[in-house]
Amino acid sequence: MKKLELTAREIAEITGGEIKGDPERIITSVAGVHDATAEQLSFVGHKRYEKQLETTKAGIVLVCGDLANAPCDTRTLIVCGNVDLAFSIVLERFAEEPPKWNVGVHPSAVVSPEAKLGAGVSINANAVIEAGAVIGDGTVIGAGCYIGHDVKIGAKCLLYPNVTVMYRCVIGNLAVIHPGVVVGGDGFGFIPGERGLVKVPQTGIVVIGDDVEIGANTTIDRARFGCTRIGDNVKIDNQVMIAHNVEIGASSILVAQCGIAGSARLGRGVILAAKAGVNGHITLGDGVKVAGTSGVVKSVPAGQIAMGTPAETQREYMQRYTLPSRFDKLAAKVKALTAELEALKAASEK
Amino acid sequence: MKKLELTAREIAEITGGEIKGDPERIITSVAGVHDATAEQLSFVGHKRYEKQLETTKAGIVLVCGDLANAPCDTRTLIVCGNVDLAFSIVLERFAEEPPKWNVGVHPSAVVSPEAKLGAGVSINANAVIEAGAVIGDGTVIGAGCYIGHDVKIGAKCLLYPNVTVMYRCVIGNLAVIHPGVVVGGDGFGFIPGERGLVKVPQTGIVVIGDDVEIGANTTIDRARFGCTRIGDNVKIDNQVMIAHNVEIGASSILVAQCGIAGSARLGRGVILAAKAGVNGHITLGDGVKVAGTSGVVKSVPAGQIAMGTPAETQREYMQRYTLPSRFDKLAAKVKALTAELEALKAASEK
Amino acid sequence: MKKLELTAREIAEITGGEIKGDPERIITSVAGVHDATAEQLSFVGHKRYEKQLETTKAGIVLVCGDLANAPCDTRTLIVCGNVDLAFSIVLERFAEEPPKWNVGVHPSAVVSPEAKLGAGVSINANAVIEAGAVIGDGTVIGAGCYIGHDVKIGAKCLLYPNVTVMYRCVIGNLAVIHPGVVVGGDGFGFIPGERGLVKVPQTGIVVIGDDVEIGANTTIDRARFGCTRIGDNVKIDNQVMIAHNVEIGASSILVAQCGIAGSARLGRGVILAAKAGVNGHITLGDGVKVAGTSGVVKSVPAGQIAMGTPAETQREYMQRYTLPSRFDKLAAKVKALTAELEALKAASEK
Repeated sequence: MKKLELTAREIAEITGGEIKGDPERIITSVAGVHDATAEQLSFVGHKRYEKQLETTKAGIVLVCGDLANAPCDTRTLIVCGNVDLAFSIVLERFAEEPPKWNVGVHPSAVVSPEAKLGAGVSINANAVIEAGAVIGDGTVIGAGCYIGHDVKIGAKCLLYPNVTVMYRCVIGNLAVIHPGVVVGGDGFGFIPGERGLVKVPQTGIVVIGDDVEIGANTTIDRARFGCTRIGDNVKIDNQVMIAHNVEIGASSILVAQCGIAGSARLGRGVILAAKAGVNGHITLGDGVKVAGTSGVVKSVPAGQIAMGTPAETQREYMQRYTLPSRFDKLAAKVKALTAELEALKAASEK
Repeated sequence: MKKLELTAREIAEITGGEIKGDPERIITSVAGVHDATAEQLSFVGHKRYEKQLETTKAGIVLVCGDLANAPCDTRTLIVCGNVDLAFSIVLERFAEEPPKWNVGVHPSAVVSPEAKLGAGVSINANAVIEAGAVIGDGTVIGAGCYIGHDVKIGAKCLLYPNVTVMYRCVIGNLAVIHPGVVVGGDGFGFIPGERGLVKVPQTGIVVIGDDVEIGANTTIDRARFGCTRIGDNVKIDNQVMIAHNVEIGASSILVAQCGIAGSARLGRGVILAAKAGVNGHITLGDGVKVAGTSGVVKSVPAGQIAMGTPAETQREYMQRYTLPSRFDKLAAKVKALTAELEALKAASEK
Repeated sequence: MKKLELTAREIAEITGGEIKGDPERIITSVAGVHDATAEQLSFVGHKRYEKQLETTKAGIVLVCGDLANAPCDTRTLIVCGNVDLAFSIVLERFAEEPPKWNVGVHPSAVVSPEAKLGAGVSINANAVIEAGAVIGDGTVIGAGCYIGHDVKIGAKCLLYPNVTVMYRCVIGNLAVIHPGVVVGGDGFGFIPGERGLVKVPQTGIVVIGDDVEIGANTTIDRARFGCTRIGDNVKIDNQVMIAHNVEIGASSILVAQCGIAGSARLGRGVILAAKAGVNGHITLGDGVKVAGTSGVVKSVPAGQIAMGTPAETQREYMQRYTLPSRFDKLAAKVKALTAELEALKAASEK
């Protein structure tokens, strides 16, 4: 981190927060609640982490409104409307800059004379750019990247090292793509033939909108025909698998290790939590949320939450989840009934 | 897509289908049912998608026998025995060719003088081929691939860019291997020692048969000893994990993100749906099908379907799945019994 | 394998085992129980695999104490305290050495003049090492690896080909990192803004201890701030996902395709079986074991076993698991009760 001193007063100013306690308290860096020392700032963004606020040694703590009345004698609190955002603002003051990428083509890169490079691009060591590829202004192609024939990449993109983009795929502006990502591998399609499984040609491409981020080692397959389509502002974590002809609506969030089978359609603002799976040929409406590890096997209307495998509504899921305790109660009731019946029988036989 | 016009009559000829409606109807490209316009051909391959047939704007639709009697006034239907195959045939007429790979060794590739290259191979930019490697006739090694010491790769294989094949592994003819695949990383084996976990050497290799396809970022580990073995005509999707000493029978299908633990044996024609897991040291008989996300913990006899975690037969799975509704019925019955018993008690006490 | 003959007597000596049967029996290689021939040694390490001992054709079999009294007329048994370790000892006699990596910098590698290379390092073909990177003595950087700005890698590490380590990350001594691994991609953090999701800067690094192994295509994200921390002697399998700010205690084992969400803390000696998932911001105590495919959603005390999704204790899990059979018994009981009640009613109405 950068060497820097900030007072609670200064931090309240840049974050728009309200000070509780000593406004002259000074911190020299930031840290998590568990690790922070008296010279550091930390944050507690939710009432459920109240205990962490009691035990942290941080000198200044950014807190949410629910925690505004916590003790502020041994430390200074700054109450913020959006703790996450406020912490990011402070963090950026201390954070070192990421490395700069040199403008120009590194001599070890292999760039086809038939590729078209925009102004101010940075093509790094051992990158390979095939004929017909078009790279937009200011875009960085990391070391060891492979950009296939006729690929189109927009402006101001950052492709980290060792990314692979196969032929004819299209990427919009402002993309951030992490190492090991593969865009445009073949979709998975085979049909039984006389001598075994026969490949179904995958003749389409992948089209990625603007302002998309793709995490390390994620794979997005080319369409059987037409496009696999990733909307604008979609954010994809690591090791996500997106099959052929899938469509993802704008501003959707796909958390790590989730997978979407062929021709599934996700609306805008859909959230798939980690390890969720979505069957092929189904539709998830706008704003659908899928819980982690869930397997969605049928379409889900807009705005709903899907949980479990096969995924159900939250209500159905809770009924299934609480079954053991409900069963125990029913079993006790049956036991009592049995005893009563025995007593009645005994009485009637007298 | 290529510029081309086809009439329904011509399409019926190349697909062997039967025309319902106007045989002179013309299309100029193909598309999915949702997107297709009046100048495009699409397909509906199953009665459960009948609604899509009613709403599609496609000029010509390939349909299965079950849909032969759908209206054909505003569009032309072509009834096909195998819709999937028929669509592939039409698609190939319109599809642009994938890029051609230049025969020869790119000057930036690093090929050991002790490697052996077959006739007509294509070794692309920045590929690395170590001593003792043997590359078969007509095989393409993509840009940035790493082919380790003494690796043997058969004829007419296509390794896309950035594939890694570690030392001594063997790949048959006609393989298609997508970017980011790792063949021959060490198997995962450690035993507790005095100062912590100690590595168990992984001294074996991976042996891959003929006509195998491997999806992007899949990993296949080398054996502890002997071979991890992938049979002929096996088709593997993206992000699949195959552990050391696993054996996969011919023409098996492993869908995305599934994983197979060490020394498991899969018979011929096994299908693992997406995200399925198979425990180590168990056997799945020929033709076993495992449902998506299932975790198979014990061996499964040939021909069976395994579902759920831990995986059970379809019957057992359905019994577990329907438990909440069966529970509700039983609870209602117990409630009724309680009321009857109360009534009886009241009567007997009179 | 190497050409070599060993007698049962010699094997008993090097493994410290006890011979049952002919001590002059000779083997010339090793194999699994299913494949072994009369000239090969195999092993059966657990009583539950007793059947395999009965059917194997191996000439010599290493067995555990529980199998010491199995027949030893057609084959020789060697009873070992730790069969796994004993087999590894024999295996190492027969195993061919892995390839040697040439000391020095390959002419095709791109090494910044501002990088610092230790004594005896091996920088292989087309590797890229950025300014400020420090590589320890005797470390191997495989072909096509990318080592970012200011990265620090310790001594005697082995980075296989096509590994990516992003800027400022730190790796200890003796690391073994398999192909396709990505260390230091950005953590996944976005907050809603006026025009969609906005990136939360990921300003921290990854710090990896000594003697860590990381399997193919695993990804470990850099921290939002501070460190994502992997303890000494941690062993990570393929396709594992470790999110930002996670901390993993020493000698933990993370099996293939498991995933750990942001800021989770794992104690020492934790074991996550294959495909397990751990929620963010929770703690798993020392020695916790998580069953395969389980999804852990709340903290688990030291020493416990967690199973299922959402993960429960083994006892809770078994209660849930046995519910269908317990339900059937209860339903039968209710049926009997109903009949009795009917009989009683009939009698009382007489």
